[in-house]
Amino acid sequence: MGAVGRRRKHWGWGFEDEQPSHREVASAAQGLAAHLGFGSPEPEMAVPLEAVELPPPRIAPPAHLADLFAAGPYDRAVHAQGRSYADVVRGFRGAFPNPPDAIARPRDESDVARVLEWCASERVACVPVGGGTSVVGGIDAIPGPGHEGAVALDLKALDRVLEVDTVSRAARIQAGVLGPRLEAQLLAHGLTLRFFPQSFELSTLGGWIATRAGGHFATGPTHIDDVVEAVRALTPDGGAWASRRLPGSGAGPSPDRMLLGSEGTLGVITEAWVRVLPRPRHRRAAGVSFRRFADGLGAVRDIVQAALLPANCRLIDAREAAVTFAGDGSHALLTLAFESGDVPVDERMDRALRICEEYGGEWEEKDAASRGSMGAWRDAFLRAPYLRDTLVAMGVLSETFETAITWDKLEPFVERVGGAAQAALEETCGAGQVTCRLTHAYPDGAAAYFTVVGPARRGDEVAQWAVIKRAASDAIAAEGGTITHHHAVGRDHRPWYDQQRPAPFALALRAAKAAVDPEGILNPGVLFDPVYPSKP
Amino acid sequence: MGAVGRRRKHWGWGFEDEQPSHREVASAAQGLAAHLGFGSPEPEMAVPLEAVELPPPRIAPPAHLADLFAAGPYDRAVHAQGRSYADVVRGFRGAFPNPPDAIARPRDESDVARVLEWCASERVACVPVGGGTSVVGGIDAIPGPGHEGAVALDLKALDRVLEVDTVSRAARIQAGVLGPRLEAQLLAHGLTLRFFPQSFELSTLGGWIATRAGGHFATGPTHIDDVVEAVRALTPDGGAWASRRLPGSGAGPSPDRMLLGSEGTLGVITEAWVRVLPRPRHRRAAGVSFRRFADGLGAVRDIVQAALLPANCRLIDAREAAVTFAGDGSHALLTLAFESGDVPVDERMDRALRICEEYGGEWEEKDAASRGSMGAWRDAFLRAPYLRDTLVAMGVLSETFETAITWDKLEPFVERVGGAAQAALEETCGAGQVTCRLTHAYPDGAAAYFTVVGPARRGDEVAQWAVIKRAASDAIAAEGGTITHHHAVGRDHRPWYDQQRPAPFALALRAAKAAVDPEGILNPGVLFDPVYPSKP
Repeated sequence: MGAVGRRRKHWGWGFEDEQPSHREVASAAQGLAAHLGFGSPEPEMAVPLEAVELPPPRIAPPAHLADLFAAGPYDRAVHAQGRSYADVVRGFRGAFPNPPDAIARPRDESDVARVLEWCASERVACVPVGGGTSVVGGIDAIPGPGHEGAVALDLKALDRVLEVDTVSRAARIQAGVLGPRLEAQLLAHGLTLRFFPQSFELSTLGGWIATRAGGHFATGPTHIDDVVEAVRALTPDGGAWASRRLPGSGAGPSPDRMLLGSEGTLGVITEAWVRVLPRPRHRRAAGVSFRRFADGLGAVRDIVQAALLPANCRLIDAREAAVTFAGDGSHALLTLAFESGDVPVDERMDRALRICEEYGGEWEEKDAASRGSMGAWRDAFLRAPYLRDTLVAMGVLSETFETAITWDKLEPFVERVGGAAQAALEETCGAGQVTCRLTHAYPDGAAAYFTVVGPARRGDEVAQWAVIKRAASDAIAAEGGTITHHHAVGRDHRPWYDQQRPAPFALALRAAKAAVDPEGILNPGVLFDPVYPSKP
Repeated sequence: MGAVGRRRKHWGWGFEDEQPSHREVASAAQGLAAHLGFGSPEPEMAVPLEAVELPPPRIAPPAHLADLFAAGPYDRAVHAQGRSYADVVRGFRGAFPNPPDAIARPRDESDVARVLEWCASERVACVPVGGGTSVVGGIDAIPGPGHEGAVALDLKALDRVLEVDTVSRAARIQAGVLGPRLEAQLLAHGLTLRFFPQSFELSTLGGWIATRAGGHFATGPTHIDDVVEAVRALTPDGGAWASRRLPGSGAGPSPDRMLLGSEGTLGVITEAWVRVLPRPRHRRAAGVSFRRFADGLGAVRDIVQAALLPANCRLIDAREAAVTFAGDGSHALLTLAFESGDVPVDERMDRALRICEEYGGEWEEKDAASRGSMGAWRDAFLRAPYLRDTLVAMGVLSETFETAITWDKLEPFVERVGGAAQAALEETCGAGQVTCRLTHAYPDGAAAYFTVVGPARRGDEVAQWAVIKRAASDAIAAEGGTITHHHAVGRDHRPWYDQQRPAPFALALRAAKAAVDPEGILNPGVLFDPVYPSKP
């Protein structure tokens, strides 16, 4: 609930009041530098907001909507970009190349409609923003051709659970609600969405839907796609793209599946019905160690192909275990957890452990009653982005990228993609390491998540990041993986997304956008090239 | 495998060599009439093909593709319409209002491309046909505006499993393969798709994908959507709409989800990667009787909300139990079955039975080792369409329609929709009955399937059918259900589909079609109004 009255850091993760002092950062940096073997123990400080120079606004908010808009330096800076490593470094150094000219803060859906109407009539690009945590260049306020400027549409005031249907276990929720406030409102009904992306604290339901976000469930409902029952979005020209609550409806292509992953290009998502759950009553969890990463891969594959549906089933390689203090670097580690609101999970857990045994796994069961199982894991998971701000301050390059591929190709794929990223890292940084974990698993394949850490050249980080990003993405494409499993496309992934997307589907998608957004005002340049205004 | 060399009945279900003699039909009719209390024990005979008068072809197949085309009366009649009750009655009486002018039988994908090229250049509508079992007017060969004629594109020669990836448990399969031949080819690898729609024997993988068909699994992967890994389709103007095998990919809106349910309007599906399974090793099944249908509804809801994932969980009302000889009409009956390829199903089955007990259910467990559980149920399920031909011959109107809605509304919904259909049936037929079963269940709702049986006025059946169809569909729409859970939209469901589909999504879909099919040749009039040729 903590967002009320608190200001986000304009450049990094979390809130201003959470920013550690220089002394605290220096203390953390000392320990981290010793652990990593690189990075300066003497951290730089972020350029303060007062010293940031933003490009002057191209347009002014309209008088009749003045009460909805803000255009001060803080508001423009905080909405200027997402929170990728490159974004954070830029912001840290005071660079905000694409701030919106103004920020609209609608209080309700009719405000959204009024802003869209003004943007379309004045040809102003409109970037819908939830939590603003994109790590793929998905919310930079860059106008399309023929646009006069660009505004951000900050949806965070639409933050309420509007309706709960306890019989059907579904809730109608406004799109701008942040994760913690969403869960707090559901808790009052004894329910939970149980969707925990790493950005949970700072991202919104609408953002999750727009980007097909991935939650912490490693199998089963991994993406927000799997829990959406109906979506409501406003389009600039076509009115409300609002589906109805029709479980399992097979009437034509799914209207929701076209909005899922549309990244703000087709409509502004204002609310959704999502499926909710009672809190789990049965839990078991274990940490399993494997001598080789490949052994762990085999166990995870067999577990998902046996349809055991673990809630958590994340495998980290030995080096990542060492870096994160999860292990001593000699073994790959699997975090395995089952949970259920109704039936005991023993049959499934016991079978999963027997599968691990077949692959030489050795395990230690966690105390199922305490938060020591899933809860502690999740807390650490959600804290990780905060650490990155410190790494930036101490001159450490820190990047993550993720992909997915079928099981038949997974092992060599991980080696080659990891190898390509490692080579690029060494080339541009001279040292550092790339580690890998499996975050989500399916009967036919799995998602691999890579973490890159290396010594950056201060001031040159974005160029170094680009070298690694390109090498990793080229390798993913060459080896047949997807350019993103759950981070979305934005602008950063466009070159590789364009390769993997079927060409006729690209034509279809652009045409669909032109039909509902003829001025091309919604998030131009994300997912596909700007659709030029259709009217003269 | 039995399709090779056998001819389908040109008007009804199954093959010509399965058509019973007049004597056999009469014998069946006698028993059925006594059981139902209506219908003539003296069956009519279908108008033989020789007596059928088809409208003359509007166009001739092109000389350079002559070897791909057939245009004889049998071929034109058998592809003239689907197999709804209205279609079968029409065909029985020798009426085939919309036969294709010719039938193309491509041997491979390059043949498909050549046919599409010719159709686009000559402005000939092209109706992709798999098994031809549409029950919603989805394959009638009706040209769009400005079209010279219409051909059917019969894909059944594309019938091979091309590749099996046993590691990832997926197979690449040509779209024209019929269910039995698909399973026979997978069986050689010890695998199965386990997707059994009621049309299984006569319908194809491509047809299932194009119509979002529903299989026999009552929970979990209910639709073909849930087992598709990648799809390949040819478009008239944009080349191959071919997605890659990218498990869980979150890159943009799913290209597959736009083809799923596209009903032949966006592209011709030529092959797909689908997820396959080993055959189940663990099985348990039971029949559970409930005093009231509502008690069974409660049990089914609790079972799916407990995430027990039964393979079968079908509830029929007491009257349907009596009509189908499944019971004596005093109780609603639930067919409950669990299966697994790996782990025992006892924990889940025991919990499900305890839930049934809470709702007053009394059960009899089936012999799990024999086909007496799931297999026998499935055999009866697959035979049902054959019976309809006999009902038509004896003047009995027999129709099914299906929908889905959330749990909070389900009980009154079933009463009102069933009541509206019953009233229409009595109005137009003077007698008869509407029964209901629950076919598929989700945590947030379920699919209700209605069966209508009544005494028809011979020769007037299609008009009577239309009265009932309209009343049932109006009631579904008024009460907030979907116009189809797994029968697709076609032309028959258009008026109600148009109401439930979000208006901007309709705009987007039409624009998408125009982008990949600018002449609007693919199945014009299905899903949306014909897209007029974009070029003069």
